[in-house]
Amino acid sequence: MTEPFRTMRRVEFAETDMAGIAHFSNFFRWMESAEVDFLASRGLNVALESAGRSLGFPRVAASCDFVKPVTFMDVIEIAVRVERVGAKSVTYGFEFKKGGEVVARGRITSVCCLVTAERGIEAIEIPEEIREKLLE
Amino acid sequence: MTEPFRTMRRVEFAETDMAGIAHFSNFFRWMESAEVDFLASRGLNVALESAGRSLGFPRVAASCDFVKPVTFMDVIEIAVRVERVGAKSVTYGFEFKKGGEVVARGRITSVCCLVTAERGIEAIEIPEEIREKLLE
Amino acid sequence: MTEPFRTMRRVEFAETDMAGIAHFSNFFRWMESAEVDFLASRGLNVALESAGRSLGFPRVAASCDFVKPVTFMDVIEIAVRVERVGAKSVTYGFEFKKGGEVVARGRITSVCCLVTAERGIEAIEIPEEIREKLLE
Amino acid sequence: MTEPFRTMRRVEFAETDMAGIAHFSNFFRWMESAEVDFLASRGLNVALESAGRSLGFPRVAASCDFVKPVTFMDVIEIAVRVERVGAKSVTYGFEFKKGGEVVARGRITSVCCLVTAERGIEAIEIPEEIREKLLE
Repeated sequence: MTEPFRTMRRVEFAETDMAGIAHFSNFFRWMESAEVDFLASRGLNVALESAGRSLGFPRVAASCDFVKPVTFMDVIEIAVRVERVGAKSVTYGFEFKKGGEVVARGRITSVCCLVTAERGIEAIEIPEEIREKLLE
Repeated sequence: MTEPFRTMRRVEFAETDMAGIAHFSNFFRWMESAEVDFLASRGLNVALESAGRSLGFPRVAASCDFVKPVTFMDVIEIAVRVERVGAKSVTYGFEFKKGGEVVARGRITSVCCLVTAERGIEAIEIPEEIREKLLE
Repeated sequence: MTEPFRTMRRVEFAETDMAGIAHFSNFFRWMESAEVDFLASRGLNVALESAGRSLGFPRVAASCDFVKPVTFMDVIEIAVRVERVGAKSVTYGFEFKKGGEVVARGRITSVCCLVTAERGIEAIEIPEEIREKLLE
Repeated sequence: MTEPFRTMRRVEFAETDMAGIAHFSNFFRWMESAEVDFLASRGLNVALESAGRSLGFPRVAASCDFVKPVTFMDVIEIAVRVERVGAKSVTYGFEFKKGGEVVARGRITSVCCLVTAERGIEAIEIPEEIREKLLE
């Protein structure tokens, strides 16, 4: 099994709540941010063009299990794995660690969509050159 | 089966993203906001006191399936059900509708914790008077 | 002097920070939300059409003085006044109260812009029918 | 005049809005994040201890002028200057640049407060060792 892509994130003051810990909704923003870093490392972007068409990857599912709280100034290591590339969808797995210890595990599934002025958002098959980069 | 608790929410401009739709992370904030409304309707609070002890309900799991996008000015109806009350945890189910159509379904599991200056956060059994109100 | 438009807002748990109070950045989101309510009361929208053209009101300045902290579950009353309508810009003044006491005062200046695919965002004179509604 | 402290920030997807640009409220979060970086460079923290007392720096004023919009994936350089250290307050000036061009200028004033369980938040004179580090 190949090594996952890894990126870092520091917990901001504005991301904490009155319980003194990072609000759980931030983990979903951090997953997206880690996905962006991962895609950039493969030469991809969450809002991209392919063969002159404008593509997007809206999320169809997101989940997270919270193991330990994190707080202001904590530096979190986020590991990103491509868990599955389907015909139209891609699923990422995320593992959050602080000081080597797992603090959360999450998953996001996105669907490849064509974005047009006329027909709005429409699910399509993931173009081959994007699939290849995701599976690299 | 009893009727779920229902509350409303309007999508704010700041909650949209450059794809022109509400960012998916907001659904998790809306679930919490709906939970707060639900708890208030039962005389409870997410940060509460019981027998002189300070209790909190940090989340251990959260998930959401996104069926249709929502956007600025959309009014969302959120139905809240208590799906399960365990010894130490409570699981809520959420259904988001817009104009009668389901746009998302989510779930949050929280653990009842005692918050003390000395020992920090520690999972405890849900006090009986809170359990009763959750199961009402 | 005419009465300002008034709207309400409850402070959400996710809007608090580890100091136990609402994070100051939220006041800017609340101003925008109050502006949206105000505009709706005049039949206007922050993202609107006029004579078939797509208009927006990006902000050029925003400021806030924080008098007293507010926290989770506080209900805030927000008064909105149109302070000035210039050729291309509009300035709103906001007063936040809790239990009758002022907790913050803010101001936002927006510029009327034409949004086109070809030329992006371009400042234009506020269309007469919008100006009239703002000055009503 | 001494050189300002400089830090960087990338605009996240979740920070954009349906106008396709970073929502203006994020500039206030970025100022705070840059302040945290600046304080860390001086061995300070926004939530700190001094002589066994717990201190905080709640904001009393914040403002920002927006010159040009920024969007997803833009890398912003933020320059931080201590503009004034009063008896109890400190004012920071921020300049945001993208590709060498100014995109926004902001200012935040914070008051040094003693945080105690008994009396809550109370403004006090900035301790000498903190003042010295701010003025370094």
